[in-house]
Amino acid sequence: MIIYPFTAIVGQEKMKKALILNAINPKIGGVLIRGEKGTAKSTTVRALADLLPEIEVTDCPFNCSPDELCDICKEKKEKGELKIIKKKMKVVNLPIGATEDRVVGTLDIEKAIKEGIKALEPGILAEANRNILYIDEVNLLDDHIVDILLDVAASGWNIVEREGIKVKHPSRFILVGTMNPEEGELRPQILDRFGLMVDVEGINNVKDRVEIIKRVEEFQKNPEEFYKKFEEKQKELREKIIKARELLEKVKISDELLELISGVCIELGIHSHRADITVVRTAKALAAYNGREEVILEDVKEAMELALPHRLRRKPFEQPKLDKEKLEDTINKLKKK
Amino acid sequence: MIIYPFTAIVGQEKMKKALILNAINPKIGGVLIRGEKGTAKSTTVRALADLLPEIEVTDCPFNCSPDELCDICKEKKEKGELKIIKKKMKVVNLPIGATEDRVVGTLDIEKAIKEGIKALEPGILAEANRNILYIDEVNLLDDHIVDILLDVAASGWNIVEREGIKVKHPSRFILVGTMNPEEGELRPQILDRFGLMVDVEGINNVKDRVEIIKRVEEFQKNPEEFYKKFEEKQKELREKIIKARELLEKVKISDELLELISGVCIELGIHSHRADITVVRTAKALAAYNGREEVILEDVKEAMELALPHRLRRKPFEQPKLDKEKLEDTINKLKKK
Amino acid sequence: MIIYPFTAIVGQEKMKKALILNAINPKIGGVLIRGEKGTAKSTTVRALADLLPEIEVTDCPFNCSPDELCDICKEKKEKGELKIIKKKMKVVNLPIGATEDRVVGTLDIEKAIKEGIKALEPGILAEANRNILYIDEVNLLDDHIVDILLDVAASGWNIVEREGIKVKHPSRFILVGTMNPEEGELRPQILDRFGLMVDVEGINNVKDRVEIIKRVEEFQKNPEEFYKKFEEKQKELREKIIKARELLEKVKISDELLELISGVCIELGIHSHRADITVVRTAKALAAYNGREEVILEDVKEAMELALPHRLRRKPFEQPKLDKEKLEDTINKLKKK
Amino acid sequence: MIIYPFTAIVGQEKMKKALILNAINPKIGGVLIRGEKGTAKSTTVRALADLLPEIEVTDCPFNCSPDELCDICKEKKEKGELKIIKKKMKVVNLPIGATEDRVVGTLDIEKAIKEGIKALEPGILAEANRNILYIDEVNLLDDHIVDILLDVAASGWNIVEREGIKVKHPSRFILVGTMNPEEGELRPQILDRFGLMVDVEGINNVKDRVEIIKRVEEFQKNPEEFYKKFEEKQKELREKIIKARELLEKVKISDELLELISGVCIELGIHSHRADITVVRTAKALAAYNGREEVILEDVKEAMELALPHRLRRKPFEQPKLDKEKLEDTINKLKKK
Amino acid sequence: MIIYPFTAIVGQEKMKKALILNAINPKIGGVLIRGEKGTAKSTTVRALADLLPEIEVTDCPFNCSPDELCDICKEKKEKGELKIIKKKMKVVNLPIGATEDRVVGTLDIEKAIKEGIKALEPGILAEANRNILYIDEVNLLDDHIVDILLDVAASGWNIVEREGIKVKHPSRFILVGTMNPEEGELRPQILDRFGLMVDVEGINNVKDRVEIIKRVEEFQKNPEEFYKKFEEKQKELREKIIKARELLEKVKISDELLELISGVCIELGIHSHRADITVVRTAKALAAYNGREEVILEDVKEAMELALPHRLRRKPFEQPKLDKEKLEDTINKLKKK
Amino acid sequence: MIIYPFTAIVGQEKMKKALILNAINPKIGGVLIRGEKGTAKSTTVRALADLLPEIEVTDCPFNCSPDELCDICKEKKEKGELKIIKKKMKVVNLPIGATEDRVVGTLDIEKAIKEGIKALEPGILAEANRNILYIDEVNLLDDHIVDILLDVAASGWNIVEREGIKVKHPSRFILVGTMNPEEGELRPQILDRFGLMVDVEGINNVKDRVEIIKRVEEFQKNPEEFYKKFEEKQKELREKIIKARELLEKVKISDELLELISGVCIELGIHSHRADITVVRTAKALAAYNGREEVILEDVKEAMELALPHRLRRKPFEQPKLDKEKLEDTINKLKKK
Repeated sequence: MIIYPFTAIVGQEKMKKALILNAINPKIGGVLIRGEKGTAKSTTVRALADLLPEIEVTDCPFNCSPDELCDICKEKKEKGELKIIKKKMKVVNLPIGATEDRVVGTLDIEKAIKEGIKALEPGILAEANRNILYIDEVNLLDDHIVDILLDVAASGWNIVEREGIKVKHPSRFILVGTMNPEEGELRPQILDRFGLMVDVEGINNVKDRVEIIKRVEEFQKNPEEFYKKFEEKQKELREKIIKARELLEKVKISDELLELISGVCIELGIHSHRADITVVRTAKALAAYNGREEVILEDVKEAMELALPHRLRRKPFEQPKLDKEKLEDTINKLKKK
Repeated sequence: MIIYPFTAIVGQEKMKKALILNAINPKIGGVLIRGEKGTAKSTTVRALADLLPEIEVTDCPFNCSPDELCDICKEKKEKGELKIIKKKMKVVNLPIGATEDRVVGTLDIEKAIKEGIKALEPGILAEANRNILYIDEVNLLDDHIVDILLDVAASGWNIVEREGIKVKHPSRFILVGTMNPEEGELRPQILDRFGLMVDVEGINNVKDRVEIIKRVEEFQKNPEEFYKKFEEKQKELREKIIKARELLEKVKISDELLELISGVCIELGIHSHRADITVVRTAKALAAYNGREEVILEDVKEAMELALPHRLRRKPFEQPKLDKEKLEDTINKLKKK
Repeated sequence: MIIYPFTAIVGQEKMKKALILNAINPKIGGVLIRGEKGTAKSTTVRALADLLPEIEVTDCPFNCSPDELCDICKEKKEKGELKIIKKKMKVVNLPIGATEDRVVGTLDIEKAIKEGIKALEPGILAEANRNILYIDEVNLLDDHIVDILLDVAASGWNIVEREGIKVKHPSRFILVGTMNPEEGELRPQILDRFGLMVDVEGINNVKDRVEIIKRVEEFQKNPEEFYKKFEEKQKELREKIIKARELLEKVKISDELLELISGVCIELGIHSHRADITVVRTAKALAAYNGREEVILEDVKEAMELALPHRLRRKPFEQPKLDKEKLEDTINKLKKK
Repeated sequence: MIIYPFTAIVGQEKMKKALILNAINPKIGGVLIRGEKGTAKSTTVRALADLLPEIEVTDCPFNCSPDELCDICKEKKEKGELKIIKKKMKVVNLPIGATEDRVVGTLDIEKAIKEGIKALEPGILAEANRNILYIDEVNLLDDHIVDILLDVAASGWNIVEREGIKVKHPSRFILVGTMNPEEGELRPQILDRFGLMVDVEGINNVKDRVEIIKRVEEFQKNPEEFYKKFEEKQKELREKIIKARELLEKVKISDELLELISGVCIELGIHSHRADITVVRTAKALAAYNGREEVILEDVKEAMELALPHRLRRKPFEQPKLDKEKLEDTINKLKKK
Repeated sequence: MIIYPFTAIVGQEKMKKALILNAINPKIGGVLIRGEKGTAKSTTVRALADLLPEIEVTDCPFNCSPDELCDICKEKKEKGELKIIKKKMKVVNLPIGATEDRVVGTLDIEKAIKEGIKALEPGILAEANRNILYIDEVNLLDDHIVDILLDVAASGWNIVEREGIKVKHPSRFILVGTMNPEEGELRPQILDRFGLMVDVEGINNVKDRVEIIKRVEEFQKNPEEFYKKFEEKQKELREKIIKARELLEKVKISDELLELISGVCIELGIHSHRADITVVRTAKALAAYNGREEVILEDVKEAMELALPHRLRRKPFEQPKLDKEKLEDTINKLKKK
Repeated sequence: MIIYPFTAIVGQEKMKKALILNAINPKIGGVLIRGEKGTAKSTTVRALADLLPEIEVTDCPFNCSPDELCDICKEKKEKGELKIIKKKMKVVNLPIGATEDRVVGTLDIEKAIKEGIKALEPGILAEANRNILYIDEVNLLDDHIVDILLDVAASGWNIVEREGIKVKHPSRFILVGTMNPEEGELRPQILDRFGLMVDVEGINNVKDRVEIIKRVEEFQKNPEEFYKKFEEKQKELREKIIKARELLEKVKISDELLELISGVCIELGIHSHRADITVVRTAKALAAYNGREEVILEDVKEAMELALPHRLRRKPFEQPKLDKEKLEDTINKLKKK
């Protein structure tokens, strides 16, 4: 099955950028995409998974990275039986009605006493390891499930504990949630746990829209041919991301910019320290994406637009928005100090 | 059992046209029929199924097309055991209280590990493959079930996944939903997923109503005889649809018209790209139905009346309506540009 | 057990007439009786069942008519084992808390694959075949059950489908529902599905009420003796109904009256075509009851009073009423045209 | 265990009279007692059961009367094994949370096919046969259970039907319900099904209240001795009731009084014919209680006070009351006619 | 485990008195303690149980008194196997989420037919027999459970009836309920069933509060030593209660005081006769506690303050309070008569 | 896995102090931390567990202290098989959806009769013994579970009782709850049961925030190295806590200060005696932490700020706050007396 190419998606630059930055550094903490249906959100996420380079995984039910093995893999390794294969990343859907058992897996207690992790019937969090976990309409999800997800997203481990028996496996994923703001906002606690947030808006530009129709109809008629036209662009972007990942470790940020970041957060009344930290990580990923080893002011500004709006205090039913002009003013005010 | 003939249905031209267009190109995405009870909605849908040409299917539980085989069929084919038969299309009802298991089927996990798709007790989505899936009072359906249906309708595949085991079978159907607007509207997300929408109104014309009574009473008394009177008309319409299906592939649309379509959508504040794409597909089906290889402005206008009203932004409790005059004005305004 | 005789019921002529007309032609579609408790509704329905001529049935669990056999009966017939017996009609109650299983029957899937309809544990709809199905306080019934009932009432078949297995048996009944309008109205969709509607009012006439007390106390003391007093009247009415049934096939209605009927429906803003058709069927039954082969204007008027009030558009909480004078005016207006 | 004697109860004459009249003629249809807690309602009902003469019953689970045998008794009778014993009447409580199974009994279907009524695990309605069925706080009872109870109370039979199997046993009881009007009224339908209604009010009379305290404390200290003091009175009342039961059959009512009764009901806007009939039955029981064979005006008036108030039309939340003066005026007005 | 001594509790005299009076005569009917958390309610109740003299019980699961034996004990007694032991009273907690089975016990029907009471898995009401039943936050308890409890409290027997089988065991306890009035009041019916009610208020007296801190900290450090300091006082109070129990039988109350009690109840609009009776019993217990054989006016006044406030009519959300002055005035007014 | 060091946490001094004081004297009764997400609440608690000295425990499922043995341990001890090991303290999470069984453990009744405590499948309260029990978003927890927790927290024992069988094990823990006040307050009863409460506020200080970012990023990159930088500080604080624990027993408080404490509570309208007692215990822990054997006024003031705010009376939705100035004024006013 041929996937619509990421680089063939018209417009929606901010959403695409946020996804790419998370692909560069998953520690940014995922993206919450807000917007109406029919604005290509799920198409874009599927296209990203298809775009990203293959990953090396072991042949265990938890999709382990060769760098971080579960107990099953460790056992195999000792016996010299561990196999490493290459796989495309995939988008794992979390359905709205999913139960806790479905998400974390089911543990057979009696078996667990003897066999540990092998007693775990893997759940969605196992499947999501090293992949993209996609939650459509995250605002309709059960609070309890959201809590579990965000805890796993933060720690990178799915820990299943029943009657005192505890097994765990790695569960590192790029978390992407979507929501339609017309159907109710998320609680501030949960908003804060998403690294970035983007508002997807409709395209009010005839040329782009006609381009979209043409591409969709063309892709519909002959996917293979359509894909070929974008093959080069896809490769370029893929390699740019690979390079950025390598560069990331070396990227530096000046104390001056750090002070600016904290200053803006305080000025905007944001208490969560996750705000500051996410801005820093996002800015570093931006620098790396642009091939630089030094974060510059523009990286910080762009990072703030992605990392701060959903962390602003709001009145009930008010939408999480950050006025760009206000942001500029705040930055300028602080720089003058 | 003799079905009331499609061509004997008095009036309701818009509803009949919308159904025919979906029969020509199921990718249009179904029809939502809004209107009061007693206005022949289910009669018309049943009549359409009866009218349409027979389909070729394999003898598997999923009603496979010879062009798209499930794993059971593939196995049979390899063994040279695959049988192709001809069948009438049927209308598959989705009852309001249907559970997820009933809709997607039930998977016997242990069996699934060994036998794959054979372990699936087929559900309504299996039965609906290549048929018409009819949901009466879709606004009373559980949201979760609606989501499943629309996802399957979009992808054409029913994917059942339990505890990491995944089986799938094709599920391509013409989706027809009905609703009584007095009993609550659908959420915008769901409205957007229906290709077309028609409002069925009462017939306020004595001649037509008397004709309806006479035909119903006549059909009631002697169905066979009544059917014979319409046999010729039925054949004509059936062949017109078959020809349109063949012609469809060749139908073209000019850039000018594409720009007009996107322009109108923007002007009307419609963000979903599904709007533009559905208008294009519907206009092409109309051209094909009329025997043309070129979409003309009139096709576009007619398509817009079917594809746009339910995608307009509305205030809560406002009804999805598109003022025809406003549509004309918008089109004229854009054409002058 | 001796049943209070139908012809001994004092007053309530409209309710009695509506029941008799359905006994003449069950295709009229049942009666909805609206009125307070204590107004002899269930007594009258039980009395009707007792009054009507015996029916010929086969000895199967579905009470088949010799003209319409279920698969069990067909098998027996082939073996020459089918027995036909005569039975009194009975009133089958549908209790408010009845589950879907209780109503449609329970299907043993594994058995059904081999034995078809024999695997069905028959439900209320089996018992109701060829009898009167009585639903007290239909407005308190679960919507889902109401939908099932009305679908079966319309098609005359109870189709049970579980996991792809489908069995069916005839289920043709005279549907009688009662409701107390003080406890909430029915949804328009459901109202439309009842053929006729009558409002039962209290009797404000001392002579009649004293007569009622005397008859009830007399019946209470000695049912046999009381019944004898009405035996002749019962026989007369029974024969009148039998004759009407025979005459019904021959009854004609003029185009002029058909136009009047549709005209009135349009004038009153009734969209459902069931309205027109029910008026026609009811008028024909009235003509037959009166021994005529030609429907006259008076039949139509009487039929309209029974078939239209509950199909008028109403505001929420407004009661379904049809002003007799308004009806006359509308008819006169149309006749002048 | 010694029961507080009926004749030792101070005040509450209307409640006591209503209970006695039902003991004379259970066809009156029970009593609904409205009043606050702590006003001796349940004490009085228990005392009545203790006061009434013993009943003759068979030794079956349904407490059959020798005049009305269940199938088990009939079988025993044929074998000459039926035993008749004498038993005190008892008060059977219907707990608020009682399920349908608990009330009607549980039917073992497979056993029922072979053994009929023996397959019924008897419920409260079996235990209640020939006894007093007492429902405390009837307004808190589940509507569905109330419906079952009132149907059984009306027909005198408990009919259990499961999957087409039907068994039945007699269930004739004096129905006594209590309710605190501060906790919500009953629906009119249900009110109408109780034969009589009395309002129990607090006693605002020092002498009576002191007498109550003294009697309760005296009874508490030495029940045997206390009972002896009232033994003679108890015997007298018991015999008066027995005589009234015998006389009842012979009691007559004039047409003039019948017309008065219906006239008053019409005048008061009461539509239910149960009103007229209950007044007649209650008036006859009163005549019998007073040793007369002829109903007099005073009997009718007293009966009306017990049988009409809860059948008057009321606005929501209005209490069911009948102004005594208004009743007199209505009677006088009608008598003048 | 050493319990904080009853006599070491600072203040809260009214609560302590109400508990002691119930310990003297459990027929008073329990205490409802209203007040905020942190006011030593549960500490006081536990301390009372520890203070009261040991009870003689049999060695059966129902904690029988040698004077009132269950069937198990009776059987043992006949065989000469009944053992009588001495036990401390205990406080049995009724948890808020307790099910009916947990409260009344579980009956194994099949076993019950053969073995009677032995088939009962004892519940909380068995454990509570002869002890204190403590319900924290009684206003949060399920109404159905409250009803069961109060019925058992009134009759002194727990009667378990399932499918016609009935077993019973004594269940006599001192019922103590607590509630925080800020969390909603109890229904009047339930309030009336508690014998006495006290409002626990905070102590606004530095000396007392410091004394409380010191005692709690002292007890915390060395319970044994602390207990010894109060041993003498504990013994004195225990003996005073034992003497009062013996004296109680002989206590008399004059007709004059009885009339005063009923008069006050009428004057205050209290209809429940439980009010008068509880005042009399409480006044007698007070006389006995004070070593008198004659109730005096002061006893009556004190009893009224404990037994009447929660039986006054209130508007919704009004708190049950009795103005002391108003009580005095009412008494004086009545005495002048 | 290396834990972020407690002494590396920037700011939030009040929260850290409250946690340390509970570590010195767990009888203070836990801490409720109020504040928004992202303010390092859970990080701090985890860091505390890591900081505290190891504990000596037995090798039983209940983590017994060598000073307080469960029955399993006692049995082992008698056989000379009891092993004592040293373990780090841990943070036990109580998930929001936890059932009662999960919290208290599951008891196998039949096994329990023979084997007592061994029949208990240990729950969270077993795991929490001698550790920190952490409840995130305690205001979203089921009331019933909260009640269980707070009772165990108060008594130090988890008592499991099913069908009359009772087993118990020690369960002493430092209770830490967090809540976001924007999501609803706790009931006053529950607030009162938490020893201390602190409001965590955001840090509005650029230097601190930059420091936080730097430390988090540094820790992220190389945890081992980061930890080494704080090793000395960690050791110092650990030893200070150990010394304070030893000193605590000897700390004295003057009567003057006790009177001041009670006076302030009365003045502020706090009724719960837990307020006074918690202030005393907290002040003593503060004195010990500061190396003093005598409580001074400053200790009392600091203790009041931690122990009183959540015990003040509030209007609904008002936040629990204690105005520092008001506290000073009250203290001064009282001191002048």
